[in-house]
Amino acid sequence: TQQLLSGRAPQSKPFRITNADRSVKKGIMAEALEDLMNKVSDSLNVSCVSALVLDEDGTGVETEDFFQTLPENTVLMVLDKAQKWTPHPYSIPYRNQL
Amino acid sequence: TQQLLSGRAPQSKPFRITNADRSVKKGIMAEALEDLMNKVSDSLNVSCVSALVLDEDGTGVETEDFFQTLPENTVLMVLDKAQKWTPHPYSIPYRNQL
Repeated sequence: TQQLLSGRAPQSKPFRITNADRSVKKGIMAEALEDLMNKVSDSLNVSCVSALVLDEDGTGVETEDFFQTLPENTVLMVLDKAQKWTPHPYSIPYRNQL
Repeated sequence: TQQLLSGRAPQSKPFRITNADRSVKKGIMAEALEDLMNKVSDSLNVSCVSALVLDEDGTGVETEDFFQTLPENTVLMVLDKAQKWTPHPYSIPYRNQL
């Protein structure tokens, strides 16, 4: 127990990474933001990752400490320089139709 | 356990900070209102932060004790002197259509 409390070794967590048009989504394990950035550029063929944002509301994930608060299986969108986050096309209209 | 109960060390919590036109949103960790103010001006390029308000209804967050009541991942809008909070463009019309 002591080791668990004091060691604080970073643990790999699963994330779900999508691209800017949400045409591809992949599960990727990562223990740190930089680790995830590296794996994402390989896995989703983004040569120059400019940002990683929360798929749900476009919040930029730029710091390691904020990254560590994300729950398992958070959906993140990877953006290159020319790309911007857009709201999920179904989220607003469908809510209205309830 | 005693240390945990008596220490009361301020704990960093995640917040989501957006700018006045909601074009940028970033995840930022902060343990106190002043801490957040400093990080926000760096991270969102606001040279002179005049106010931090709740994104949902424009409530000004000016005191440390009110700030401490905010739940994790509260969305806050940063304003400089010339800027004012405005309602979210989608929230009112869509809610009315229910």
